[in-house]
Amino acid sequence: MLDFFFFPGSTYSYLAALRIGGLARAAGVTLRWRPFDVRAIMTEMDNRFLAGKPVKYRYMWRDIERRAARHGLPWNGPPQHPVDPEREALRLATLAAMEGWGEDFAAASFRAWFAEHRSPGIGDTSAHVLAGLGRDPAGTLARAAAPEVSARIEAETAAARRLGIFGAPSFAVGEEIFWGDDRLEEALDWARRPWLGTPIAPVP
Amino acid sequence: MLDFFFFPGSTYSYLAALRIGGLARAAGVTLRWRPFDVRAIMTEMDNRFLAGKPVKYRYMWRDIERRAARHGLPWNGPPQHPVDPEREALRLATLAAMEGWGEDFAAASFRAWFAEHRSPGIGDTSAHVLAGLGRDPAGTLARAAAPEVSARIEAETAAARRLGIFGAPSFAVGEEIFWGDDRLEEALDWARRPWLGTPIAPVP
Repeated sequence: MLDFFFFPGSTYSYLAALRIGGLARAAGVTLRWRPFDVRAIMTEMDNRFLAGKPVKYRYMWRDIERRAARHGLPWNGPPQHPVDPEREALRLATLAAMEGWGEDFAAASFRAWFAEHRSPGIGDTSAHVLAGLGRDPAGTLARAAAPEVSARIEAETAAARRLGIFGAPSFAVGEEIFWGDDRLEEALDWARRPWLGTPIAPVP
Repeated sequence: MLDFFFFPGSTYSYLAALRIGGLARAAGVTLRWRPFDVRAIMTEMDNRFLAGKPVKYRYMWRDIERRAARHGLPWNGPPQHPVDPEREALRLATLAAMEGWGEDFAAASFRAWFAEHRSPGIGDTSAHVLAGLGRDPAGTLARAAAPEVSARIEAETAAARRLGIFGAPSFAVGEEIFWGDDRLEEALDWARRPWLGTPIAPVP
């Protein structure tokens, strides 16, 4: 069992979201798609990964471009970022996870963002993505606005916070957490057979 | 040709420094050991990777522990950090690189830090590491204090800055940079055969 914590507006979640389904199936590992509000956690921690860091920001796009090419994923130049200002894509991703089509929505949302430069939660992107999945845009957006969806987002974000997650994408096998698309293979290996015992004591 | 930019007090540089020599030789890639003052660059960028972030800090140690185990490298619990307050280890690493024993010094310094908890640039660590390499501690430390070594540190740090390097370890193939021990394999692949053309235009 592997928990995939992601956010529809997280750049590196793109790479992970389009790779994890196939890799997990090949490894025989059951996957749970768990969208969460990584921005809320990063704000709490004053973890401003990229703000005010143009050199690092530029590197990020080149790194994603290189890794997308290695994995055969679409790359169309840096897309808009940040995105999903009102958490609309997060609500849809959460609704989809609750209803069992979490992987389909996430894959379509990330592809739209990176391949077509349709930004999550901005303009008509949601309607476009939902229509592409054969789902009624208006009805689905209405369901995503329900209080149960907001409650689920808060619960999943709280679960991530409890695990010590501080960024997206992250992977969890029970309480063992892995941060970053570049740890996906390690997390899957761990899900099959951990190579260490219990975690070290907290560092003061 | 691969340039290895590292700092003797950088935690993740430990993993890279003990892996890169063997991997580069196996790949037939010539390696240049290039110590630099990553702290100066991070201060300039206000890039406080871990300061005030206990959750992320704790994760770092667990991540290094897991990766050390995967690669068969020593792990003895989290060592002291930060270290090398006066750049003594950086000066020695730079002198060693200038004199052609850069790999030997770096490997011994990182092993002492992580396996024996002898902190770089603190107490008698330098003398211990130098003696273990069969080098005269007093004479070597005197050579490391020469202005030429300080000038080399500044020049290498400036070179890293020009390349857009913002953290350690980093790898460079010409002007293509890779950040983090987890990009070592990609950097070596790139040194043998780049899989993309020229870098994207700078992101404003």
